[in-house]
Amino acid sequence: MFSGAQISLYPMTDDFVGVIMSALGALDPYRERLRIETDDISTLLVGTPDVVFAAMRDLFVAAAKTGKHCVLHATISRGCPGEPDDPICQTPELTGPLAPMDERKAEALAAIAAAPVSGQIAAAQFSLYTLGIDRHMDEIYGCIDVVKSSGTFEKSKNFCTKLRGDASAVFATVGEAFLRFGPPAGHVTVDLTVSGNSPSAV
Amino acid sequence: MFSGAQISLYPMTDDFVGVIMSALGALDPYRERLRIETDDISTLLVGTPDVVFAAMRDLFVAAAKTGKHCVLHATISRGCPGEPDDPICQTPELTGPLAPMDERKAEALAAIAAAPVSGQIAAAQFSLYTLGIDRHMDEIYGCIDVVKSSGTFEKSKNFCTKLRGDASAVFATVGEAFLRFGPPAGHVTVDLTVSGNSPSAV
Repeated sequence: MFSGAQISLYPMTDDFVGVIMSALGALDPYRERLRIETDDISTLLVGTPDVVFAAMRDLFVAAAKTGKHCVLHATISRGCPGEPDDPICQTPELTGPLAPMDERKAEALAAIAAAPVSGQIAAAQFSLYTLGIDRHMDEIYGCIDVVKSSGTFEKSKNFCTKLRGDASAVFATVGEAFLRFGPPAGHVTVDLTVSGNSPSAV
Repeated sequence: MFSGAQISLYPMTDDFVGVIMSALGALDPYRERLRIETDDISTLLVGTPDVVFAAMRDLFVAAAKTGKHCVLHATISRGCPGEPDDPICQTPELTGPLAPMDERKAEALAAIAAAPVSGQIAAAQFSLYTLGIDRHMDEIYGCIDVVKSSGTFEKSKNFCTKLRGDASAVFATVGEAFLRFGPPAGHVTVDLTVSGNSPSAV
């Protein structure tokens, strides 16, 4: 298994470099459990989904707490057939057979309900793709059921689902969508955008 | 068929609202051929792939020509089974059977070579997902062959492919990837990030 994310942080301010540099400290508690590589478009985080999502959440919250309008985008992937196995990505949750849908839904909702509170409100939208399987929309519809019961659901949009709530619950919702839907050893990706402090927010 | 994109523009400046508002004029030539809806996270463009990609390109170039560091992100989709058919999306290129791979590669490279020059350099990365088919990686590898011969290829990254070049050629490359790979009536998505004027660019 190989899992991780390409993440980018966009602070809408002249001091975007300063906001990014100061927020990067939020990754420090996770550095031993991640492989990190940066270029001019994104930063790669390779690790287990729980660590990758916690790191993204803390990075976003650190940037948004400056009060500036900040957006984090992530291209998240697990099980891509083109990627080599990596020991840093080993997790028991992505082995074994696909559990029954109802069981997975209950586990996801319990994990979302247990998310801590960050104190930072976030809006988000995401698309979940389960690749290389015929009945991928069944997984998507199961995921949508969970999202609608998560407490973070705002609305369905074309191509994605929109969330709003405490940033911690928002990242937990997307993290559970990524972890619980699609076969454990399957190829699953998420296209995620999280926004804080937008002047356009209703 | 339903096709379109959820797009977001991120100007890294205190005047991000001004840059976005002034760039929006670039969409005017396309408004009659698109359905457009905006909220606080993204703007939906519904239309044929050629119009959607031309509109995204011109919006990005208009914003980047301010000289500010600007990023455009797009979640692009066609043929999603959950979306209704829409007459504004009808295009002959997305009907009929899947043409042989070599023929599609040649058509894609010819279209990329014919792209006009914008005068704006862009870096980009994208992921192509062909959903609901068993052998989706064959389509991905065919697409990667085209990208490597496109003149815009910079490098392969985990989860995505990175491009650099004139913004027009960059958008043409991604547009051809989206149009030519995966069955014409199939569900295909792209996760695209395009960056201009980054201070980190090498």
